[in-house]
Amino acid sequence: LYTDTVMDHFMHPRNVGEIADADGVGQVGNAKCGDIMKMYLKIKDGVIEDVKFETFGCGSAIASSSMATEMIKGKTIDEALAVTNRQVVEALGGLPAHKLHCSVLAEESIKSAIKNYYDRN
Amino acid sequence: LYTDTVMDHFMHPRNVGEIADADGVGQVGNAKCGDIMKMYLKIKDGVIEDVKFETFGCGSAIASSSMATEMIKGKTIDEALAVTNRQVVEALGGLPAHKLHCSVLAEESIKSAIKNYYDRN
Ligand code: FES
Repeated sequence: LYTDTVMDHFMHPRNVGEIADADGVGQVGNAKCGDIMKMYLKIKDGVIEDVKFETFGCGSAIASSSMATEMIKGKTIDEALAVTNRQVVEALGGLPAHKLHCSVLAEESIKSAIKNYYDRN
Repeated sequence: LYTDTVMDHFMHPRNVGEIADADGVGQVGNAKCGDIMKMYLKIKDGVIEDVKFETFGCGSAIASSSMATEMIKGKTIDEALAVTNRQVVEALGGLPAHKLHCSVLAEESIKSAIKNYYDRN
């Protein structure tokens, strides 16, 4: 049902937690299941220096966000904005069709956190 | 959003895992979010001697199943069948309304595992 990469990111999620002095914080909810994803960004000179996430969501949401945070860490804001839900799922080696909605939380929370960063600056 | 009891059972879930020589195994899927819950029972003389669950579900599903397994361990089959989703949520001190569907997995998977036990015997 789930790829080895999904299971690895579910069992050992990267970048879980909070950044107390984040430069941008995003929170989005999933219309389908009601789960919430919170994303914290530390940004310097247009580069995402650190990123962490918190969720009560399912295994697919955890794996997707773990992978997505790895994909944007050290990248510019523009590069992070270009990361799509589809790329995250591809990097995970796929997700079951009925769990694709969980991975959307990752992309949306990153965009929400970057919007919050721009709103502050 | 979540009670201390929910957070406790989410962070430290009881009875997670598999029982290799289970007497009854139940698996149910959640129509709303697509998550799956698997429940294993060890039954002797009509009493549930051991119970374990596996899921890729969200925090609410994990907390509900953790609590439900604690509620049926050491109980008779009839007592276990009488445990409702509502009692589990009450024991957790409540769940947000949009997460109630996650707790249904616990009740349904217990009933499914007991049905499987009867089918075998
Ligand atoms: S079921 Fe809610 S995030 Fe996956």
